[in-house]
Amino acid sequence: MTRARKAPEIRTAELLDCAQRLFFERGYDDTTVNDIIRAAGLSKGAFYHYFASKEALLEALAARLARDSLAELQPMLDNPSLDAVGRLNALFAGSQRLNVELAPQLRTTFAVLFRPENVVLFHRVDLAARQLALPLIADLLAKGSEEGAFDVPDPLAFADMLLQIRLIFRDVMHSALRQADQGNIEEAARLLDERLRLYGVAIDRLLKLPDGTIKAVEPGFARAFLQAG
Amino acid sequence: MTRARKAPEIRTAELLDCAQRLFFERGYDDTTVNDIIRAAGLSKGAFYHYFASKEALLEALAARLARDSLAELQPMLDNPSLDAVGRLNALFAGSQRLNVELAPQLRTTFAVLFRPENVVLFHRVDLAARQLALPLIADLLAKGSEEGAFDVPDPLAFADMLLQIRLIFRDVMHSALRQADQGNIEEAARLLDERLRLYGVAIDRLLKLPDGTIKAVEPGFARAFLQAG
Repeated sequence: MTRARKAPEIRTAELLDCAQRLFFERGYDDTTVNDIIRAAGLSKGAFYHYFASKEALLEALAARLARDSLAELQPMLDNPSLDAVGRLNALFAGSQRLNVELAPQLRTTFAVLFRPENVVLFHRVDLAARQLALPLIADLLAKGSEEGAFDVPDPLAFADMLLQIRLIFRDVMHSALRQADQGNIEEAARLLDERLRLYGVAIDRLLKLPDGTIKAVEPGFARAFLQAG
Repeated sequence: MTRARKAPEIRTAELLDCAQRLFFERGYDDTTVNDIIRAAGLSKGAFYHYFASKEALLEALAARLARDSLAELQPMLDNPSLDAVGRLNALFAGSQRLNVELAPQLRTTFAVLFRPENVVLFHRVDLAARQLALPLIADLLAKGSEEGAFDVPDPLAFADMLLQIRLIFRDVMHSALRQADQGNIEEAARLLDERLRLYGVAIDRLLKLPDGTIKAVEPGFARAFLQAG
């Protein structure tokens, strides 16, 4: 009797799971294709049947991480009972709820992705996330402009800038996590809350909404996130 | 007679010159310390006397590139005859003048820095540039707020966001250069001009200035830049 052969999509998912675990444990640069096939119990030939290179696997992993996180947020973007401002606020509220729920895992993920040896991994995941999010945010801005809720001269270019600004949270989150690890939760939470609030003000201004319309942070978020796990 | 010994700062500058040339020719990842010492005509021991690692040399090179480009722009930031809005506009005008003057070299530099194998180099250079520029831009925003020219709730956080948004030009410039190389100069110039104009509008809005106050692009810039070299 031969060993049952797994469907390609299951095999691919298993390879991605193994690679993700190893990248997170050791860093992307310090994980080889040999490490991955050993962990997955596959031959080199089988690996290259699924992925042309470690780089190609990284691409697929980044796309999967981006797809998974966006799938969680899609319902807020599609809610027909909300106007464009309401949807943007629901998006931030949903993202914060997820961040608090998943805080222990996310803190590990952030700690890994922000490591200097993972700069390639970080920017690949960001690129994949941005490619998925860009048309959705551009569409939201276009609808808001049509409804007269916003004033956006170019929805795609402005969506691109909004998504770009959020990358300041790579450094802000890194500082906050380091401070929290050193026991300064109060100061770390204050810093993170304030920078999220100012990100909301930046979005207000870019869309010509009154300061304070977009709530990128809810009271107590930073403390709940930093204290978890 | 022994060979004349060079002063350490001259030796360091020569090593950085060699490394820069090799990184630009071959990419950062594909250049080894051995390649650099061979090109510089130094022993391994001498190299490690100046830099602890290739990484440390990258750090020094990024800082030098950032310092050099900021030194060119410092006079616009310091001009006592201009108000804060005038200084911001002078900064963009000066940066465009430099971009057109140095267009042939810059096009090579951009083509190298945007290569996927140079993502580490790109983000290191950006980090160094940002660390130098951040306090200067924050200071400008603080002065403009005091003068009543702007309305900025937090000069440092807003300077950080302004500097972050400019990174969209990594992709925008990459597309424009590719289109120009394919002979579509008209379309490439239109795209680049329009995205620069919208960046100016974004800054206007973040500072609560009327749209069109900050001129991030002057007529004909993109065409002059893309046609050069």
